[in-house]
Amino acid sequence: MPYLRYKRIMLNLPTIQTVIPPDIIDLGAGEPSLSLIPLEMINTSAQKVLSQSDNSFLQYGSEQGDGHFRFVLSQFLSKQYEFDISPEKLFVTNGISNALDLICTLFTQAGDTIYVEEPTYFLAPRIFADHKLNIISIQSDDQGIDFELLEQKLKTIPPKFFYIIPTFQNPSGHTLSQEERTQLISLSIKYNFIIVADEAYQLLGYTQKPPSSFAAYTDQKNIIALGSFSKILAPGLRLGWLHAHPVTIQKITICGLLDSGGGLNPFTSALLRDVIDSGNLENNILKLKNTYSQRIQSMHLVLQKNIPEVSYTHPHGGYFFWLQLNNGMDATTLREKAKAHKVDIRQGKKFSTSNGLDQFFRISFAHYESEKIEEGILRLSNCFTGKE
Amino acid sequence: MPYLRYKRIMLNLPTIQTVIPPDIIDLGAGEPSLSLIPLEMINTSAQKVLSQSDNSFLQYGSEQGDGHFRFVLSQFLSKQYEFDISPEKLFVTNGISNALDLICTLFTQAGDTIYVEEPTYFLAPRIFADHKLNIISIQSDDQGIDFELLEQKLKTIPPKFFYIIPTFQNPSGHTLSQEERTQLISLSIKYNFIIVADEAYQLLGYTQKPPSSFAAYTDQKNIIALGSFSKILAPGLRLGWLHAHPVTIQKITICGLLDSGGGLNPFTSALLRDVIDSGNLENNILKLKNTYSQRIQSMHLVLQKNIPEVSYTHPHGGYFFWLQLNNGMDATTLREKAKAHKVDIRQGKKFSTSNGLDQFFRISFAHYESEKIEEGILRLSNCFTGKE
Repeated sequence: MPYLRYKRIMLNLPTIQTVIPPDIIDLGAGEPSLSLIPLEMINTSAQKVLSQSDNSFLQYGSEQGDGHFRFVLSQFLSKQYEFDISPEKLFVTNGISNALDLICTLFTQAGDTIYVEEPTYFLAPRIFADHKLNIISIQSDDQGIDFELLEQKLKTIPPKFFYIIPTFQNPSGHTLSQEERTQLISLSIKYNFIIVADEAYQLLGYTQKPPSSFAAYTDQKNIIALGSFSKILAPGLRLGWLHAHPVTIQKITICGLLDSGGGLNPFTSALLRDVIDSGNLENNILKLKNTYSQRIQSMHLVLQKNIPEVSYTHPHGGYFFWLQLNNGMDATTLREKAKAHKVDIRQGKKFSTSNGLDQFFRISFAHYESEKIEEGILRLSNCFTGKE
Repeated sequence: MPYLRYKRIMLNLPTIQTVIPPDIIDLGAGEPSLSLIPLEMINTSAQKVLSQSDNSFLQYGSEQGDGHFRFVLSQFLSKQYEFDISPEKLFVTNGISNALDLICTLFTQAGDTIYVEEPTYFLAPRIFADHKLNIISIQSDDQGIDFELLEQKLKTIPPKFFYIIPTFQNPSGHTLSQEERTQLISLSIKYNFIIVADEAYQLLGYTQKPPSSFAAYTDQKNIIALGSFSKILAPGLRLGWLHAHPVTIQKITICGLLDSGGGLNPFTSALLRDVIDSGNLENNILKLKNTYSQRIQSMHLVLQKNIPEVSYTHPHGGYFFWLQLNNGMDATTLREKAKAHKVDIRQGKKFSTSNGLDQFFRISFAHYESEKIEEGILRLSNCFTGKE
C-alpha cells in the first residue's frame, strides 16, 4: 500500500461520504453503486480538454457557466426532453443541493415561509432550516398533491417557493401528471410563489416516460427546474444545471458570490463537455436504465415472494421503492429489528416534516446489484417471521 | 474553426468571466495572466487519478473534503507556514467566495451586523449584502487598523464576524503586524465575534515574509482563516480551504448542504492531490513569486519615472499597487480620462463601503507581463499631462 494512502487510512481521512460496513446491506442508501460510475468515460473526455493548449477554463469563469458546456448541454437536453432548450435559459450549478442553497440566499430571508411535499427528500428541509425558513408541508400521496388543502394554505400563508420533486419522487416514486403540473403553475401565478422543481430523476424513466420537465414552463419567470449529473453520471462531480427564464437567471448571475468567484464550476464543466458531446452521457443513461430496470424486477419479485406484509406502487423510474407496512408494525420498530439482521432501511418519518409517515419506509435499488438486493430483502423478511 | 466553437462564439457563450477588449490595457484587473496558469501541470496530475482504477472520488464525498487531499494539503501548508497544520483542522471549500457565502448562511442571519475593513475587497460586501447583513466599516490604512475606533464600535454594535484580509491586502497591500493580530484576537474573545481572515495572498510574499496565518490561532473556536488555489494555481478550479478549530469545522460539516451533497469539491480536489504531493505547487508558487517580483519592479520604475502625481507604499506581496493621487484629481476623473487613453484602473471608492477613498486607485501587476504594464502606465501618465 502506498505510504500516503496508508497514512490517510490510519488517520481516518475518508474520501467517500458514507462508508457502509461490509457486513451490512443498507437498502436505504440513495447513492449509486461505484460500479455504475464510469471513470474511464470521464477520463477520456477530461483528457481531451486537458491535453489541448487552451487553458481559458482555468480562469475565473463566466457567471452563467462555461458557454461551450451550456451549448452542448442544451443540445443534449433538447434531445432528451424532446423540446428546445436554449443555452440562455441554462445556468450551471454545483448540483441540486448547491442550487437550493443559492435559491434560499437570493430569493428568501430568515422567517420566510416555504412549502415542501409530505413526504419529501429528507435533506432538503435541512438546507431550508439553515436559512431559518418556516417550512410547511403539503400532503402528497399516490393520488398526487392535495390541491384543495394546498389552496387553503395558499390563502393563509403563501410561500416564497414550493419545493417539489415532480418526477419519480424521492421517496415515494410518484410523478405529478401533466394536468397537476399545469394546475400548480396556475396557482403559482395566482399566489405569486416560485416553483422549485428538483428533477434529479427526470431522465431516469424505465417503464414510463414522465411528463415534460418544468423547463418547458420557463416562459414564466417564477419557475426554476433543477437538473443534476449526480444520478446520471457521478455524484462527486458536484455539477448540475438550472432551468429558468433569462430574467430569473440574471437575478442569480448578478449576485455577490458569482461576481466575486465567477461561474460555479468552470473546471469540471469544461472537462465534461465531451462526455455530453460524444454521445457517451446518452449511452450511460441507457445503460443505467437497463441496469436499474433489471434491479427493480429483482427487488419486486423477492418482495412479492417474501414480504407480503408490505404494499407499494411499482416504480417506473428513479431510485426508490416506497413501502407501506400493512401488519400494524411501524418502520421505527422494523428498522430496529432489521439492524439485528444486518440490513438497513430509511424510515418514513425521515421524509416527514411533521414526524408522521411511520407506516412507510424507503429502500433503493441503486446501490446494490441484484444478488445483494435479494439477499437484503431476505434478511429484511426475517423481521416479519418472528426470527430475531 | 470546429463547428461547436463557432456556434458558441456566434451565440456569445463565453468561457471566461471578464473578457478585456484587446485594445484596452486594464491595469485594474485582479486575475492572473492566462500565461501563468499551468495547464500542463494540472493535466499531469489529473491523469494520475483519472487513469487508476479507484473511482471513489466520483461518489458523494466526505463532508470535510477528500481525506487524501486534506492530508497532502496539511503537509504542504505545514511546510509553507512553518508550523504544524493537522488535516482535522482543514475543510475543503469551493474557494474563498464560496466559503464566505457558507459562513454567512451558517453563522449569521438577515439583519445581523458584520465588520469589514475600509478599504476592503469590493466584492465581499456584495456577498454579505445578499445575506441582508448590516455592514460597518473599520478604518484601516498604512498604519493598520484603528484599534481605538474599533473598540468604540465594539462597545455599541459588536459584529457576528469581522472580515479582514490580513496579508498583502486587496486593495491596499497592507499586512497586519503580529502585534495587531494578537490584539484583534483578544478583542474577538472579549466581544465574542468571529474573525474571518481572507488569506488569498498569504503564500505570495515576495520581498517580505508575512506574519503567521490566522491558522496559527485556531486553538480558538472563533477564528476562521480562508485559503485558495485561485492565486497560487488557477481560479477556475474553484477550490480552496478553511482553517478552523475542529468544533467550528463540525458546525459547518453538519449543515444541510453538506449532508445532502457531500463534500464541496471531491472531483477537483482528487485531481489535484498530486499537484501538491509532487512538489509542483511549491514550484509554481516559486515561479509566480519570481515573475510577480519582476513585474513589481517594472511597475514601480515606470510609475516613478512617469507619474510623480501619485504616492504609494511599495508592495511586498500580493497582487496590487494602491496609489494615492497627490495632485487634487479624484480617481473618478482619472478613470474617465484613462478610458480615453485605452487604459483602465479601479477607483478607490469601489473598495469603500461609505463611498469614500476617491483619492485612491488600485492597479495590479498580475494580469499583464512587464511590457504591457509599462505601456499601460505610460498611457495612464497621459492623463496627468493634459494630453486628452
